[in-house]
Amino acid sequence: MDSKQTLSLDDIKAHNSPEDCWIVVGEKVWDVTDFLSVHPGGSEVILKYAGGDATEAYNEIHAPGMLEETLEEGKFIGDLLPSSDVPPSSTIEEAVEAENSPPRIQTKAQVPIQIPHQVPDVYEKPHLHSLISAADFREVAKHTLTPKAWAFYSSAATDLVTYTQNKALIRRVMIRPRILRDVKHVSTKRKILGCDSDVPFFISPAAMARLAHPDGECALARGSGNEGIVQCISSNASYPLSAIVKSGKKDQPFFLQLYVNSDRSKTAELLKKAAALGIKGVFVTVDAPVPGKREADERIAAEAVASAISGAVASNDKKGGGMGRLMAQYVEKSLIWKDIQWIKDVSGLPVVLKGVQSAADAILASEFGASGVMLSNHGGRSLDGAQPSILVLLELHRICPDIFDKLDIYIDGGFERGSDILKAIALGATAVGIGRPYLYSLTYGQEGVEHITQILKDELETSLRLCGLTDINQAHPGLINTQDIDHMVATSSAHPYIQWRPRAKM
Amino acid sequence: MDSKQTLSLDDIKAHNSPEDCWIVVGEKVWDVTDFLSVHPGGSEVILKYAGGDATEAYNEIHAPGMLEETLEEGKFIGDLLPSSDVPPSSTIEEAVEAENSPPRIQTKAQVPIQIPHQVPDVYEKPHLHSLISAADFREVAKHTLTPKAWAFYSSAATDLVTYTQNKALIRRVMIRPRILRDVKHVSTKRKILGCDSDVPFFISPAAMARLAHPDGECALARGSGNEGIVQCISSNASYPLSAIVKSGKKDQPFFLQLYVNSDRSKTAELLKKAAALGIKGVFVTVDAPVPGKREADERIAAEAVASAISGAVASNDKKGGGMGRLMAQYVEKSLIWKDIQWIKDVSGLPVVLKGVQSAADAILASEFGASGVMLSNHGGRSLDGAQPSILVLLELHRICPDIFDKLDIYIDGGFERGSDILKAIALGATAVGIGRPYLYSLTYGQEGVEHITQILKDELETSLRLCGLTDINQAHPGLINTQDIDHMVATSSAHPYIQWRPRAKM
Amino acid sequence: MDSKQTLSLDDIKAHNSPEDCWIVVGEKVWDVTDFLSVHPGGSEVILKYAGGDATEAYNEIHAPGMLEETLEEGKFIGDLLPSSDVPPSSTIEEAVEAENSPPRIQTKAQVPIQIPHQVPDVYEKPHLHSLISAADFREVAKHTLTPKAWAFYSSAATDLVTYTQNKALIRRVMIRPRILRDVKHVSTKRKILGCDSDVPFFISPAAMARLAHPDGECALARGSGNEGIVQCISSNASYPLSAIVKSGKKDQPFFLQLYVNSDRSKTAELLKKAAALGIKGVFVTVDAPVPGKREADERIAAEAVASAISGAVASNDKKGGGMGRLMAQYVEKSLIWKDIQWIKDVSGLPVVLKGVQSAADAILASEFGASGVMLSNHGGRSLDGAQPSILVLLELHRICPDIFDKLDIYIDGGFERGSDILKAIALGATAVGIGRPYLYSLTYGQEGVEHITQILKDELETSLRLCGLTDINQAHPGLINTQDIDHMVATSSAHPYIQWRPRAKM
Amino acid sequence: MDSKQTLSLDDIKAHNSPEDCWIVVGEKVWDVTDFLSVHPGGSEVILKYAGGDATEAYNEIHAPGMLEETLEEGKFIGDLLPSSDVPPSSTIEEAVEAENSPPRIQTKAQVPIQIPHQVPDVYEKPHLHSLISAADFREVAKHTLTPKAWAFYSSAATDLVTYTQNKALIRRVMIRPRILRDVKHVSTKRKILGCDSDVPFFISPAAMARLAHPDGECALARGSGNEGIVQCISSNASYPLSAIVKSGKKDQPFFLQLYVNSDRSKTAELLKKAAALGIKGVFVTVDAPVPGKREADERIAAEAVASAISGAVASNDKKGGGMGRLMAQYVEKSLIWKDIQWIKDVSGLPVVLKGVQSAADAILASEFGASGVMLSNHGGRSLDGAQPSILVLLELHRICPDIFDKLDIYIDGGFERGSDILKAIALGATAVGIGRPYLYSLTYGQEGVEHITQILKDELETSLRLCGLTDINQAHPGLINTQDIDHMVATSSAHPYIQWRPRAKM
Repeated sequence: MDSKQTLSLDDIKAHNSPEDCWIVVGEKVWDVTDFLSVHPGGSEVILKYAGGDATEAYNEIHAPGMLEETLEEGKFIGDLLPSSDVPPSSTIEEAVEAENSPPRIQTKAQVPIQIPHQVPDVYEKPHLHSLISAADFREVAKHTLTPKAWAFYSSAATDLVTYTQNKALIRRVMIRPRILRDVKHVSTKRKILGCDSDVPFFISPAAMARLAHPDGECALARGSGNEGIVQCISSNASYPLSAIVKSGKKDQPFFLQLYVNSDRSKTAELLKKAAALGIKGVFVTVDAPVPGKREADERIAAEAVASAISGAVASNDKKGGGMGRLMAQYVEKSLIWKDIQWIKDVSGLPVVLKGVQSAADAILASEFGASGVMLSNHGGRSLDGAQPSILVLLELHRICPDIFDKLDIYIDGGFERGSDILKAIALGATAVGIGRPYLYSLTYGQEGVEHITQILKDELETSLRLCGLTDINQAHPGLINTQDIDHMVATSSAHPYIQWRPRAKM
Repeated sequence: MDSKQTLSLDDIKAHNSPEDCWIVVGEKVWDVTDFLSVHPGGSEVILKYAGGDATEAYNEIHAPGMLEETLEEGKFIGDLLPSSDVPPSSTIEEAVEAENSPPRIQTKAQVPIQIPHQVPDVYEKPHLHSLISAADFREVAKHTLTPKAWAFYSSAATDLVTYTQNKALIRRVMIRPRILRDVKHVSTKRKILGCDSDVPFFISPAAMARLAHPDGECALARGSGNEGIVQCISSNASYPLSAIVKSGKKDQPFFLQLYVNSDRSKTAELLKKAAALGIKGVFVTVDAPVPGKREADERIAAEAVASAISGAVASNDKKGGGMGRLMAQYVEKSLIWKDIQWIKDVSGLPVVLKGVQSAADAILASEFGASGVMLSNHGGRSLDGAQPSILVLLELHRICPDIFDKLDIYIDGGFERGSDILKAIALGATAVGIGRPYLYSLTYGQEGVEHITQILKDELETSLRLCGLTDINQAHPGLINTQDIDHMVATSSAHPYIQWRPRAKM
Repeated sequence: MDSKQTLSLDDIKAHNSPEDCWIVVGEKVWDVTDFLSVHPGGSEVILKYAGGDATEAYNEIHAPGMLEETLEEGKFIGDLLPSSDVPPSSTIEEAVEAENSPPRIQTKAQVPIQIPHQVPDVYEKPHLHSLISAADFREVAKHTLTPKAWAFYSSAATDLVTYTQNKALIRRVMIRPRILRDVKHVSTKRKILGCDSDVPFFISPAAMARLAHPDGECALARGSGNEGIVQCISSNASYPLSAIVKSGKKDQPFFLQLYVNSDRSKTAELLKKAAALGIKGVFVTVDAPVPGKREADERIAAEAVASAISGAVASNDKKGGGMGRLMAQYVEKSLIWKDIQWIKDVSGLPVVLKGVQSAADAILASEFGASGVMLSNHGGRSLDGAQPSILVLLELHRICPDIFDKLDIYIDGGFERGSDILKAIALGATAVGIGRPYLYSLTYGQEGVEHITQILKDELETSLRLCGLTDINQAHPGLINTQDIDHMVATSSAHPYIQWRPRAKM
Repeated sequence: MDSKQTLSLDDIKAHNSPEDCWIVVGEKVWDVTDFLSVHPGGSEVILKYAGGDATEAYNEIHAPGMLEETLEEGKFIGDLLPSSDVPPSSTIEEAVEAENSPPRIQTKAQVPIQIPHQVPDVYEKPHLHSLISAADFREVAKHTLTPKAWAFYSSAATDLVTYTQNKALIRRVMIRPRILRDVKHVSTKRKILGCDSDVPFFISPAAMARLAHPDGECALARGSGNEGIVQCISSNASYPLSAIVKSGKKDQPFFLQLYVNSDRSKTAELLKKAAALGIKGVFVTVDAPVPGKREADERIAAEAVASAISGAVASNDKKGGGMGRLMAQYVEKSLIWKDIQWIKDVSGLPVVLKGVQSAADAILASEFGASGVMLSNHGGRSLDGAQPSILVLLELHRICPDIFDKLDIYIDGGFERGSDILKAIALGATAVGIGRPYLYSLTYGQEGVEHITQILKDELETSLRLCGLTDINQAHPGLINTQDIDHMVATSSAHPYIQWRPRAKM
């Protein structure tokens, strides 16, 4: 891409309406008039910067190459005249180069446009090696992320019942360790959707990793490659899919999490690109046709009502204007069972349904051709009150035990310890998704990703040895005592004693 | 009504005994000697002001038109001579006009007699649009209501066990969301006691809404009309029934909550007036032949012992002199099953029994001709230790499942979220009553009423979509996992293993 | 009793050894040499004051007449010479007169020797009529009792598990109120061990009421008489039995709680006196052959190690020197089942076993001739970990339901509300013992006793009405939902699945 | 041993490499080059002090005689020249003498090299006799131990779930006391692995007692002898086994806890020495082939990363460098069932497996010739999430009740009260191990050991009397109500409803 012309801010400021909208990003000027209607985050956010400089807001969320990838080339208007009182920043060229060539954005020096973190002076970020658990990373993230990023990552739906119970019920599952086995050598290797993984867990997809670190999902990719784990990339990643994949090693396996776009052609395009990039499977999110009500996230937006920036959005919308709601605007609300086959056909990839919350839907997933299901309630972010995922895993055993022969069974939500992972595997899960802990680890970039992986792997190895196991694949339900939560497991897809059914009142 | 004469305070002060009692309200002088014995709140409260000005105490509780409606015209003595050091206040005429014509008391300017709120300076009431949940409204109410009003609204019986468990058990009910349905369009419309409602919830009756806002129940009525919901008006409303109904739109449906008066003729009169006003149904309160012991409420009264105002009441009465006790003095303690027919006969309206707490009484309700029951423990305000209403709903399924074909089943107590409402509907409730959240919303007047309604409706729509439902009427028990509380549900109207029955000891 | 001589402190101080021990109490000098070995509280406490003035320590625990009643007349040595710098105090004569004549010690003026209360200046004791619950009385007691008295009354065994669970499990029992009964009139009258009582509860015995108020048990007696309730008098009362009984009205019913003395003749003497005084029944304590370990109580003693007063006791005794331990020194540890008959024979009174904690022992109680059992764990003061008394009540229904035809079933431990009492009665209890709340009410003397009684009675009446009952004797188990605790109720006297029995290891 | 030569620090400092490593300990110079590779705590800790003075670090952990016992005599190089600015310290001779003769290191004066305690000035250590419970000792230890020692003793694995539940579930077990037995005399005597003990509990092995008191395990031995209890000595004791045994009385029984060394010859040597010293049984630890992850302990090490002392260890090791991990480096990870026979053969002693956590392994223990099992999860320090030991005890009754005829059943983890001990014995345990409370008692040396023993014994005697028992051997399961936790007890060695077994995924 070449500069066509050089413009001053004065040249731009007249293009400030929905009918004629230019913005500056990274000292380049773009015509985004046509893009307004298809922006996943809605037009209003862009219009705030119409005829002006949107660089800071852009960089907080999006990777450098994202704009060039999204807009047609003709929308590039020209370069902004350098201003003497503005420090030099990275150029779009660098970002595009990063996108189109092997990743080089590995160091801070290469991404000079820093996201300003609103860290209070008093907090001293601890040295990475003093962190010894996932909880430690959460604590650091709480203090070092911007309030908006912390709210977006950590929030869950309304009263946090499901979020809290996800973890609480895993902790109420007990282990019955066995003794006196030779556990000198121990293996945690596992096949995950046909891919080799050094561990029986993988990175659950989460949006907008750039909020935690400039390298965002690329840092996750590099860390995953070094540690032998699989990353499931979010549809709402900060970086383009290709940039993320290319950040990894040759043949490093990736999965793609998919929000189907209400414009299906965009989804078809994405799936084809994913297949071309060697993605190994598609995790279709099915538990969020609309986003859950994450109050911490929405409160941040509500607080901004008074400011000029997001006021219009929030004041028009009783549903809140948190990032979760904003990013979900393009998501297809009409996705139905038969669309699974369409996704398989378009992508040629195995499909896993992410967000299955009942045995009844696991059975349907098998009938409709899914390769697996992910028992998930979106980390408690979707419908508050939904049963914790560990209960769904047990429900499968109660209601449809043969499903374990037909589908891969993935699970996430509240897993933070090696022993948590062992419990799920022993109860029949294929692998466990780890979400927030990886986002939190990103506050240390790639090194953090590797460190949290090593911690979890070490915890898992220790747990295996202390259970008398030498291979994660030996884990079996006899090692587990679930009796403290068994009474909460549904025993049929109907209610056990309520015969009432909706009738005339409909 | 015309002024008969003009009096000074000196002219009045001799009329200060039970045998000869005049009071000033709103610069008008009234002879309330005969009224003392029938005042629902007891005579002692009035006698405090005998021969003096009762305006402030009156306005805190009662609507402007209430006095004229209650007293015969001959009891109006005359106008009070205006005092130079008293600011001009609204005149009784204005209030009466409000009562007898389409409501105009919609703005603060029209109700200049402000209730003085004892708000500490430090609390800044947040902007309405920054409130995103019922809990937010409670927090604001806690800080902006007068201590007396907060105590009256928020209090519950003795140790708050039932109050607390009402909500806790709803939260322990889990949802099993279904996936991959087309949920683009969703309907929350519901028939409630034959009336069309935009939502499957309605405003539970609560006394003395004027404590929260000068417009009191009229603001609830106007908000209900705008949002398409049904208001159930309390017998102890601050405003006359006609004023409230007339505040609503044409054909806007209302229910009337009824405390039967120990003077049955007064009840008959009220019921006839209700029928004439187009009220759609009568919710007879059956769980409070006497008021529960609400200690926060009574403590406010107890603290006032030392002051001249309410000292006499409290010191003579071991039962406490809280507002709950005061207002219940006229309530009939001898109401029995056969009176249901009398209420139906007099009013010609369907009758719902509010406060049913066992399957046994739901069965009797059906036999004695009720159209519905409201499973309620008075929001935990009646008998502390009474089982939470969600348990009673489940008890009906266990003991008398066919009752759902015979009666409408309403429920309230602790419902604060759209997902709470969905749980009840899926378990067979016809609609859910929402009480305290609406009182708290009144701290923002009519706008608050509309805002909380929109929040609840949005939460409910989101919950429906996340459950794979497109219409609230599709909700069914298979979506719900109640197993965490099933052990607490009674399985018969007798005790399951105790054979002991009262005998000689009687 | 006449003064024999007048002595100065100098005359006395040589009599300061176990072999020759004089002490001053209330300006009278006594030879307690022979008494040392039989003092229920042990000799060491007395020896602290050998040859000196023990008045203050004596008055803190004992009533004025106690010493004269206990010692033979010959042990009175003479009067102490009045000292100019000591304020005049009540004379022994007055105290003796109080013992031997109708009680006159009803006013503070008559008991001028005040117990010094170590109340911090900041606490302002609230007016009695501002107290509206038993919990309010506890709060006042906590602030106004001496630390020693508070520790003695409020303490329970070791980790307070039984103490805490006593109350918690009562609260987990739920009520199923019935509706639409005529509850205008309501009766709480009940027969208790053949006596008429206005309420189905009575004052559980508790030692040393004088720690809370100078009038001690006499105030309880007068209050009971006025309120129509029965007082069960502790063996360890501060006042002589006769003084307490005589404080009551004519024919006012009393029970006697009995610790059998290891010197059985003393017990026989006490029982005969009780019968002569018209006591209606004997509650033999069977759950405390040794006192439980009440750490708060013992800690007070342990803290005193350093001081000269109780140092010797504490440092010699790993079992702690709290008041509970001290007072139990005389208790017979060899009391066995056949002794029940002996107590009946000696007293001619019905016997209730206080402290039955299993169905097995309730059955034995019936076989060995008891008239009733009191399900009690000594308010959690005896063996920590013992099952809460409400579980024992339910255990009787599970294991030996016919026991309710054979015995009166009393219960105490954690009952603080009218609704608590209703639960027990509905589940088959004859009456409920109320212990600590009455001790706490004594901080207001007789008036406090009457006020707490009225509160409990009002709460009970309200509960009856709200349950649709007009007479406490109508209460039945169908009103109660115990399902939240039913899983904790033992179903047999053996362990349900453990077959192991002690064998060779014995 | 004679001094060979006298050296200055200058003479030593060149010997500072792994190939030539001298250190000073207690003014004596040793060549530890060959010892580096076999040091249980790893070589790096020693190399920190290569060519310098290691006295302080040595004394914190090791007893005076430990070095002489471990090294061959030829490794002693000579004495260090006394430095004028160094205070005189105990000589190695004294320590050796202590090792080779009857113990004399009974007073502080004899162990002048004090461990510096980092106690904040504000905490005043209470007088021993003011302590009345195990919890009191923990509180003192928390304030008086060094942070490192407190972390090492008090820590448990990861989230402390098992640690917390160990105690919580014991507390949820209820007692059903029996009444009216003659309990004047009571016996707590018990046979433990064939040895006479005054009580049915013994000192559970715990490493490095010297961290709490200079006399370490020797103080435990002397206290045990005086109180008639059995001490189980840790493999990782601070003092040599012989020194500890010789600290006790003649014929005082001891057990040896064994970590099998990956160099089996060392273990054989230890077992032969134990047999020769009269040790009565071997408790082989089987629940810790690798140490659990005790985060409090590891955090202390992580904090030290920055310092020169332990930096190298921690920064190389993601597994953390806490004392638990360091001390476990020599432990055999390949110990298997048939090794039990080898231990029996080598030692000629009965073998108990410490750390059995399932009925399945208790059965195997019996088949492989163990004399007993100790139901233990290492005090919650091994695998977090492992079921509490009281559940394993109940599991044995459910799954293999005849095991109580075949094996002694020991148990530990969370037992802190006499009543806790009674519960276990009544449920079939042979004896209960008490771990941390004894370590905490060591903050008062031998006197503390005796005091905590007397407290526990008194609590147990009180509990027996209050249960109507006169001998601990009469305790039976009918006294116990376990119903509040029965639902958590596994009923088979398989999972009760999960049929899934690991298959192709392996």
